[in-house]
Amino acid sequence: MKISILGNNSALPAHDRYPTCQIVNIEETYIMVDCGEAAQVLLKKHGISWHKIRHIFISHLHGDHYFGLPGLLNSMSLLGRTEALNLYAPAPLMPLMQQILNVADTVLSYPLQFIPLPDGIATIADNSLFSLSCFPVEHRIFCQGLLITEKAKSRKLLPERCSYYEIPAAYYKQLKAGQDYTGKDGFVVQNEWVTEMGKPEKRYAYCADTLYTESFLPQIMNVDLLYHESTYLENDAERASSRYHSTAKQAARLAQKANAQQLILGHYSSKYKSTLEFEQEARSIFASSFASKEGDIFEI
Amino acid sequence: MKISILGNNSALPAHDRYPTCQIVNIEETYIMVDCGEAAQVLLKKHGISWHKIRHIFISHLHGDHYFGLPGLLNSMSLLGRTEALNLYAPAPLMPLMQQILNVADTVLSYPLQFIPLPDGIATIADNSLFSLSCFPVEHRIFCQGLLITEKAKSRKLLPERCSYYEIPAAYYKQLKAGQDYTGKDGFVVQNEWVTEMGKPEKRYAYCADTLYTESFLPQIMNVDLLYHESTYLENDAERASSRYHSTAKQAARLAQKANAQQLILGHYSSKYKSTLEFEQEARSIFASSFASKEGDIFEI
Repeated sequence: MKISILGNNSALPAHDRYPTCQIVNIEETYIMVDCGEAAQVLLKKHGISWHKIRHIFISHLHGDHYFGLPGLLNSMSLLGRTEALNLYAPAPLMPLMQQILNVADTVLSYPLQFIPLPDGIATIADNSLFSLSCFPVEHRIFCQGLLITEKAKSRKLLPERCSYYEIPAAYYKQLKAGQDYTGKDGFVVQNEWVTEMGKPEKRYAYCADTLYTESFLPQIMNVDLLYHESTYLENDAERASSRYHSTAKQAARLAQKANAQQLILGHYSSKYKSTLEFEQEARSIFASSFASKEGDIFEI
Repeated sequence: MKISILGNNSALPAHDRYPTCQIVNIEETYIMVDCGEAAQVLLKKHGISWHKIRHIFISHLHGDHYFGLPGLLNSMSLLGRTEALNLYAPAPLMPLMQQILNVADTVLSYPLQFIPLPDGIATIADNSLFSLSCFPVEHRIFCQGLLITEKAKSRKLLPERCSYYEIPAAYYKQLKAGQDYTGKDGFVVQNEWVTEMGKPEKRYAYCADTLYTESFLPQIMNVDLLYHESTYLENDAERASSRYHSTAKQAARLAQKANAQQLILGHYSSKYKSTLEFEQEARSIFASSFASKEGDIFEI
């Protein structure tokens, strides 16, 4: 799973930072996470294929998290997209998008499947490759976090060993599923003799605009990578909480409590020109903290 | 009057060209003409003060002409704007903007005055400095052109001559309005002895997305500067008309018929990487043609 950072600023574009937008790549299926204004420009700039985007998640309806969406959906249609697109977003976005298409007398060239985000914790997508589930964070308006789970791969066959034990190909599926093989002579070939571990499960948690809270800690426990907004530095903790945002230190504290492997910071307030201090502040608590920059790619 | 070109591409951002957006500066009062996605980024990039924008005109509701508006209006509010803003746009934009503000639970920090564009030819703003009037062009959906008229200035006093003829300051207003002055002794000081011509009227016509048509020729006759869309080159004339757009040659033909002083081209299709041929094609018919580039400033 690769997470590409496109936009990482809060509220509005500033200091060459764009509002929130990320692309999560799971075996060349792309999931866009939030879609700030000019997302389509950033996709092009970083050479990210639009066709591979099959899922778009919008955490909440503050403009810096979705004002790039009408343009992106429209442009995909102008470029003749045919691939279906799943849009997971707060319910009021659908009538809004319909109105935008209506006033332009536009019909999209591809199927847009709208999945309204439910209120609580819920699985919103589940396929053989990954699952998406959302969980409530605490913001001024309805806002959902997102957990992306890339599923563990079945065990990997070791072809030479399989032929050594003369296991028929028809039995390979069971081997991958972890079963032993018993030959006609009753000899048991233990699974681990002929297979090796597949890729383990990977988990990325995206905690969009939120107060510091431990309310969703159970959902993000032991994730491989945690993104947690850090709009402010700790000396602005009061302002952060009054605006339903967090500080870099708070993000780090949560990463530590969640026993995460790594932490990505972002959603910086425009009052900060440099993001260096965010990283320093978070690392004082949680060493594997990274202040995201446009173009960064985190691989897990 | 200065016209700054920000965005000049059609449909979507491409080849480092952004969708349509212009700023018209009349004595430091700014009128924004259309507002493609990322307009706020371009304003910042070109050092254009947001506070001076007092009027925004949206020609029609295809996304490439207004997808930058929600972000701009929102950002102005986040930055604490207090100056009133007049928004002239097709009627359905107002409920759309209201819905966008509602779902974000946002109240703007400044008064936004919405003026729905009427169907026909109409004056939509009129003050001591300029007037704005709209006129129908021919596009796939309701679309209005815009005529910006900077008013002629009253005559300019020549202070030394006024004192030579001992004209009391109380009479200066009448002098500026062109009246003669009669002294107590009955001696008539002719106006042109003590004043000179003020700035003449200036007219800029913006013809947004449209087919080639002479239907609005009376509205744009003798303008100092004409912007006319030129989405295609002449060898794509058929495609142009089927999509309710024009070619560079057609734009030039209209500039010629309108007896305009200068022509600006723009709204280029993304199929063209260079815009050089647009200029060449138009100049074959109308010499004072310019293919607009981002950052260009036309002064009249």
